Amino acid sequence: MQTDVLITDVGPRDGLQNQSRILSPAQRIALIEQLIAAGVRSIEAGAMVSPKAVPAMAGSDEVIASIATRYPVQLQALVPNVKGYQLAVQAGAKAVLFVICASQSMNQKNVRLSVEDSLLQLQQILQLATQDQVEVLTCIAVAWHCPFEGKTPVATVSQLVTQLQRLGASQLVLADTIGAANPASVRHLLQVIVQQQDAALLGCHFHDTRAMGLANAAAAVDVGIRRFDAAIGGLGGCPFAPGATGNVATEDLVMMLEQMGLRTGIDLAALCQVGTFAGELTGQCTGGRADRWRQLQLAAQQPLY
Amino acid sequence: MQTDVLITDVGPRDGLQNQSRILSPAQRIALIEQLIAAGVRSIEAGAMVSPKAVPAMAGSDEVIASIATRYPVQLQALVPNVKGYQLAVQAGAKAVLFVICASQSMNQKNVRLSVEDSLLQLQQILQLATQDQVEVLTCIAVAWHCPFEGKTPVATVSQLVTQLQRLGASQLVLADTIGAANPASVRHLLQVIVQQQDAALLGCHFHDTRAMGLANAAAAVDVGIRRFDAAIGGLGGCPFAPGATGNVATEDLVMMLEQMGLRTGIDLAALCQVGTFAGELTGQCTGGRADRWRQLQLAAQQPLY
Repeated sequence: MQTDVLITDVGPRDGLQNQSRILSPAQRIALIEQLIAAGVRSIEAGAMVSPKAVPAMAGSDEVIASIATRYPVQLQALVPNVKGYQLAVQAGAKAVLFVICASQSMNQKNVRLSVEDSLLQLQQILQLATQDQVEVLTCIAVAWHCPFEGKTPVATVSQLVTQLQRLGASQLVLADTIGAANPASVRHLLQVIVQQQDAALLGCHFHDTRAMGLANAAAAVDVGIRRFDAAIGGLGGCPFAPGATGNVATEDLVMMLEQMGLRTGIDLAALCQVGTFAGELTGQCTGGRADRWRQLQLAAQQPLY
Repeated sequence: MQTDVLITDVGPRDGLQNQSRILSPAQRIALIEQLIAAGVRSIEAGAMVSPKAVPAMAGSDEVIASIATRYPVQLQALVPNVKGYQLAVQAGAKAVLFVICASQSMNQKNVRLSVEDSLLQLQQILQLATQDQVEVLTCIAVAWHCPFEGKTPVATVSQLVTQLQRLGASQLVLADTIGAANPASVRHLLQVIVQQQDAALLGCHFHDTRAMGLANAAAAVDVGIRRFDAAIGGLGGCPFAPGATGNVATEDLVMMLEQMGLRTGIDLAALCQVGTFAGELTGQCTGGRADRWRQLQLAAQQPLY
């Protein structure tokens, strides 16, 4: 199916890593299978991090191995360093997401490395990935705002993009890790970055902390972005970033983009049911709001509009 | 205080007209007084409609008289016809909102008049208002989508704007009555209308039915709109439009606009408390989401970002 936008559901990773209820690999595999059945073609399936630091991601290798051998989807694992990369590849991942923060404080909290040391890790990963034919996406976390250092200067992100490009990182994701961006700041940063980086190779990752997840995504669409992270049911929150709450809900993003005439390849009704399943698994009231509208339509027994 | 955006809280009218619990005039006056205390300077206080058709708006004259004599705010009453206008002026309203629909079906359902007959009513109101020194705002309802006729053609709205301007209606509000607009359709319609009508005299009214209220407002800001309707607590829904749910919440809109650097003159913390009060009065879980973020900040005992 031809699509206009690529949505990566990061629910099985970003969505679950901070939940009070820890899901087993089998439960996470079931969630991913439902996402695939709803038409999701890109999924962040786990994180190759210490199970002591992030217990919810234990068994990510098992999750990745199970899905990678059975479904032809784009499956990525979050990796903080070379060791994580190696574990991801051993599990069968064909794509990895390397995270680097736009502030020193957040990078230290997140991976206990300076930004410079993270760049060295990435350099090694990129060399290995060329040999292994593994795709590397690089996420610039706290690209708009850091919970420890405040607003991230646009120049800081721009310089980091230049450094990443020099290393050969071709696919970048700008993340509003704590949900502190707004449509004006999204537009402002992206208008600078798309001068440096082909918009087709640039994704955005928004959280809905301040209810602006969709508004920020719409601003990014307007600047030309066509790759987005989202989490089923609006699950999410970063264990190392105070105040961070759920990702923008995949079902809400799909609803908006499809209404805007952008094809996602995802079945919204099926996706809403996956949202309900995610809520049952986690025991959390999900943050997705598309389902309310779908229920209104069902109650009216006709397409309302 | 200098402000960049004028927000009209339509909660006491649009927010309450479709609630299962009917509030007394005294309760509505208390809600309006709290809005004023939080810094809201423009309020839609009631509707001059038949109490049989809309029981929740009974006693709107009492509400308007009480507020108009005591507070120097911009207070408007919704009027469907000349009779409603006369009642509003008798009650002491210095501004009225006349509603006309962009589709014949919705106009019939709403006021039992053809669009042409509504235009004749408006013509008389505008003549009377000049003598009375009363301000007239004209709301074009279902400007994006009609629950009976589907998508509203841009040309239909554009032609109606021309007709309204010929009658001398200088202040217009475009309403997404059922919350079916999206950031692309908002941008598309507004880019046409701002060619006809000074953006400074053009407002937007969004509902959050599909969770796109803020995204639509951000798109409108980008086109140059600086006047918005919103309802405290995200209350709302039209009794004659199937599937319509709450207005965009005033506290969410204030949060977004202030974050975007646009001054509203409204105290967000105080406004969130009014949202809680609105929830208590109506017995409804409110749709406003700004308060969740405020609670996170309070829990962290520091400004998070």
